[in-house]
Amino acid sequence: MPTYKAPVADSLFILNEVLNLAPYAELPGFSEASPDLVAAILAEGGKFAEEVLQPLNQVGDSHGCQRSADGKVTTAPGFREAYTQFTEGGWGALAGKPAFGGQGLPHLVASALEEYFISANMAFTMYPMLTLGAIAAIEAVGTPAQQQLFVPPMLSGRWSGTMNLTEPHCGTDLGLLRTRAEPQADGSYRITGTKIFISSGEHDLSENIIHLVLAKMPDSPDSVKGISLFIVPKFLVNPDGTPGARNALGCGALEKKMGIHGNATCVMNYDGATGYLVGERDKGLRAMFIMMNAARLGVGVQGLGQSEVATQNAANYARERVQGRALSGPQNAAGKADPIIVHPDVRRMLMNNRAFNEGARALMLWGALQVDLAQVAATPEERQRADDLIGLLTPVIKGYFTDLGYQNATNAQQCLGGHGYVREWGMEQFVRDARIAMIYEGTNGIQALDLVGRKLPMNGGRALRLWLTEIETALNTASAEPRLQPITDSLRRGLGDLHGATQWLMRNALTKPDNAGAGSMAYLHLMGLVALGHQWLLMAGAALRALDAQTGDAGFYQNKLITARYFASHLLPETSVHRARVEAGAENLMALEAAAF
Amino acid sequence: MPTYKAPVADSLFILNEVLNLAPYAELPGFSEASPDLVAAILAEGGKFAEEVLQPLNQVGDSHGCQRSADGKVTTAPGFREAYTQFTEGGWGALAGKPAFGGQGLPHLVASALEEYFISANMAFTMYPMLTLGAIAAIEAVGTPAQQQLFVPPMLSGRWSGTMNLTEPHCGTDLGLLRTRAEPQADGSYRITGTKIFISSGEHDLSENIIHLVLAKMPDSPDSVKGISLFIVPKFLVNPDGTPGARNALGCGALEKKMGIHGNATCVMNYDGATGYLVGERDKGLRAMFIMMNAARLGVGVQGLGQSEVATQNAANYARERVQGRALSGPQNAAGKADPIIVHPDVRRMLMNNRAFNEGARALMLWGALQVDLAQVAATPEERQRADDLIGLLTPVIKGYFTDLGYQNATNAQQCLGGHGYVREWGMEQFVRDARIAMIYEGTNGIQALDLVGRKLPMNGGRALRLWLTEIETALNTASAEPRLQPITDSLRRGLGDLHGATQWLMRNALTKPDNAGAGSMAYLHLMGLVALGHQWLLMAGAALRALDAQTGDAGFYQNKLITARYFASHLLPETSVHRARVEAGAENLMALEAAAF
Repeated sequence: MPTYKAPVADSLFILNEVLNLAPYAELPGFSEASPDLVAAILAEGGKFAEEVLQPLNQVGDSHGCQRSADGKVTTAPGFREAYTQFTEGGWGALAGKPAFGGQGLPHLVASALEEYFISANMAFTMYPMLTLGAIAAIEAVGTPAQQQLFVPPMLSGRWSGTMNLTEPHCGTDLGLLRTRAEPQADGSYRITGTKIFISSGEHDLSENIIHLVLAKMPDSPDSVKGISLFIVPKFLVNPDGTPGARNALGCGALEKKMGIHGNATCVMNYDGATGYLVGERDKGLRAMFIMMNAARLGVGVQGLGQSEVATQNAANYARERVQGRALSGPQNAAGKADPIIVHPDVRRMLMNNRAFNEGARALMLWGALQVDLAQVAATPEERQRADDLIGLLTPVIKGYFTDLGYQNATNAQQCLGGHGYVREWGMEQFVRDARIAMIYEGTNGIQALDLVGRKLPMNGGRALRLWLTEIETALNTASAEPRLQPITDSLRRGLGDLHGATQWLMRNALTKPDNAGAGSMAYLHLMGLVALGHQWLLMAGAALRALDAQTGDAGFYQNKLITARYFASHLLPETSVHRARVEAGAENLMALEAAAF
Repeated sequence: MPTYKAPVADSLFILNEVLNLAPYAELPGFSEASPDLVAAILAEGGKFAEEVLQPLNQVGDSHGCQRSADGKVTTAPGFREAYTQFTEGGWGALAGKPAFGGQGLPHLVASALEEYFISANMAFTMYPMLTLGAIAAIEAVGTPAQQQLFVPPMLSGRWSGTMNLTEPHCGTDLGLLRTRAEPQADGSYRITGTKIFISSGEHDLSENIIHLVLAKMPDSPDSVKGISLFIVPKFLVNPDGTPGARNALGCGALEKKMGIHGNATCVMNYDGATGYLVGERDKGLRAMFIMMNAARLGVGVQGLGQSEVATQNAANYARERVQGRALSGPQNAAGKADPIIVHPDVRRMLMNNRAFNEGARALMLWGALQVDLAQVAATPEERQRADDLIGLLTPVIKGYFTDLGYQNATNAQQCLGGHGYVREWGMEQFVRDARIAMIYEGTNGIQALDLVGRKLPMNGGRALRLWLTEIETALNTASAEPRLQPITDSLRRGLGDLHGATQWLMRNALTKPDNAGAGSMAYLHLMGLVALGHQWLLMAGAALRALDAQTGDAGFYQNKLITARYFASHLLPETSVHRARVEAGAENLMALEAAAF
């Protein structure tokens, strides 16, 4: 049976010793988030993840969701009770606006917890995560009345939310969508069409489900410029917030899928359902992207979360399973064999995962801080700066974290040999669950294109310059510290590769856009590596400071330094091959006729 | 619904135009294998794979195998009929010895077909593959009487075979095994113990199942030096070959696993079952490794086979699914969107897979030729040379092919976006099925250790020198041809990385064996890349010769050149990072205390 232990000490190290939060102490949310309170919340949330959510993870996988003939969907045994505990604990409302019943804490704190919930039970956590995405859209573009009507019950978890984009013939290219919205005399719309792959589309956890649906009005352009966003509740809502009639929509089928069986992925049929325009007409994509950007960061955290829990279980196994002898001579001479953690190739997989997990956690929290600052920083310049940074890094966090999440879950599974392949040990579920994160909320290929085609050139490359300056500053600060040299040297080489690849794209992608597309995924991974290298440099610096000051657990900080050096010596050098791939361009890649495949 | 088309033209290109078979034309097996006969066999076998095996692939996945209370195991609907057709077609006996009813064709021809059968239905193909492994062991170490009794019905497929190594507490470290073999007065043994993860352990396809079981005799050393191999038939066999009593063994449970649901993976209980020593007592591991080495090559082919079929389906989808517009401007101006194959990142995944598949097919067939030559070449020197080469490359073919098989199946799945994640399209099955190949027959970590710790240093590095000389010869031949320069340049750089990594290991691994273990997987991948680069150089040379001679389909050869250049520009440069990882050594990798994980 798999287990999970929330890495609270690691999250707190990043929050308290790596991120420099002092300048923000007086900002809304941050002023309430004292270190003691945050530590207590993470400890409590970690316990909830470990004790309530994790034991249901395999249950969700083996039972899945059941749809009855009338379209009702039942979640796996225990999910309802856990959802009730989740809402009663207020876990979904931590970073919500106080005006709507939220606790007003920084997004930063909620993100730290989100990782734990995802590690413990990704399929379960998708229910509240989708709700938060829907709230973000309503808050961003909804009228005050819509916000007042829908957000408080959603924030409490009494109602949940969904995103309805994909249709059978279109996902990435929303210009092709066919769902129609016909205006009615009362100002509402009749929504008709079929949506597929709708996560949390129908279930028995919440009283009501608020679907956010993309559709086209009859006289709108038949392109992405003619798409509007609608609130389409499962139960209509009276003006006083009480539930009204059942709306004309339903789950037509549950998708049979590779993983995340605990989440109900639905085909949703809208048969003239009543919907309400949210935001401007024909500007639905803008609202959708607000929801999507938040969701993309959350999906990135899924990559981290699955990598973390899979690694923990692989490490537990590797410490206990005895098989063979260490190459350097018996380590467990009294026994007939050594624990497999003595074998360097097993170590390699565990260290690869660990170096990613800890680095990704730091980058994820750094990103969450930017999300907060983009909203509450003191000056418009600071808000813009944070928004630039998180805009640039969002596709990297989504794409790189989920590619590595899957790869690392696979590594962790490998540590168990044949036992990793059978269901019992739970490892193969982590792999199957992690796989979806590379696909949804925009495939990783779309993330790479968003990065290279949109985020890099935006505002003349302002965001990239800002971020590179942060890294240069960190390198300059660290250069006085010889103990950091293995890390600074490696990061400088990585940065050199990033500069080289960026300049190559500037010279070669404008005249031939396929060169941008051809190198986009390599560029995304190159940037992910440099971003983690940057975070590792910051963490190593913080660890040295603590060691020099002789505060805290010296072993914890020593391990940080070892893992930082491992990242620098074994993982970061991969930047060179990504640069080579960018610079190889599109020619050989695009040369074959399509018919030749 | 997934489809499959056997790549017959590609196999024949390699057999007829890339491998230089002329010097072997008079050898046993080769003399019968005229190009026309081979072409006919591949066409017929390809058709069998496409029309009989492939349509059962999803059936096997969704139905799995069923075990009834009395321990009987039923395979998925259609498997029995397909197995009958398989045996009637003589598909399992192609390379079998004529003395035992085989057709005596080269292993080379059987390997080409094996790929097709695996692509079409990997779980099904495991039944006959395991039988061939068991035959190899009996032929290698069994007495003439044992061979005569067991091999003919196994070769015909009337009986099938299994390998029983793993026990609950041991897989890799067989010295720990507990299954006992007690000598009986009649010269037989009573076998008692539990084996797990036994592929094809019990099923309804064949009349009898011949289990090869590793066990310890009471007075043998309690280590790998005390393991013997036994033939333990499901039904005892009378001296005249007729079936006797049911033996005291059975399937205790079916494993629930991530994939290959169509194959019955069994817990096997031996309750004082009658067994017969095969080969020398206490030398069971030697016999097992004969079986294992053949099986490892077959597992490598599984990596290729799953990559191939997944790629075909991804390419079909990418040519048909319209979504978005090409970066270089609309390609399908009449439609509302372009087929996604216009997008460079989709292309990248397809080209990565294609460049692997075609290169791996060439290396696999080159390897199969060595297997043949090791047995039938004219002189002892030639046989030794072939044996050296295939011994060296076996862990590479197993490890590199299966790592890439899984990675490429994942890439192919990615091309379908959300449709890749649902069962219907069959892509996620390819990923789940491909995953096991990295684990069984020795995990890929074990392959890497076998390569670096055993195969490299064996006989003073003779095998590596032989193989490097082959590559140098190919490079020297090609250097006169400027059109091959992009490939030769890249291969020379790869070879330089291989030399560098090898020398680093020679200098640093003897004094500190952990350095060998730490870099072993990187070294295996480095060697895999160079091996494929070598094959691509040979294929590109053959393609140029055909183009210059204006024979055959010019498009086919042009595509080979394009794909060769793509391999050289986009994939082969990865050697540098593997070299860097080898040279990074074990220090940072092994520094953490085990308890810190």
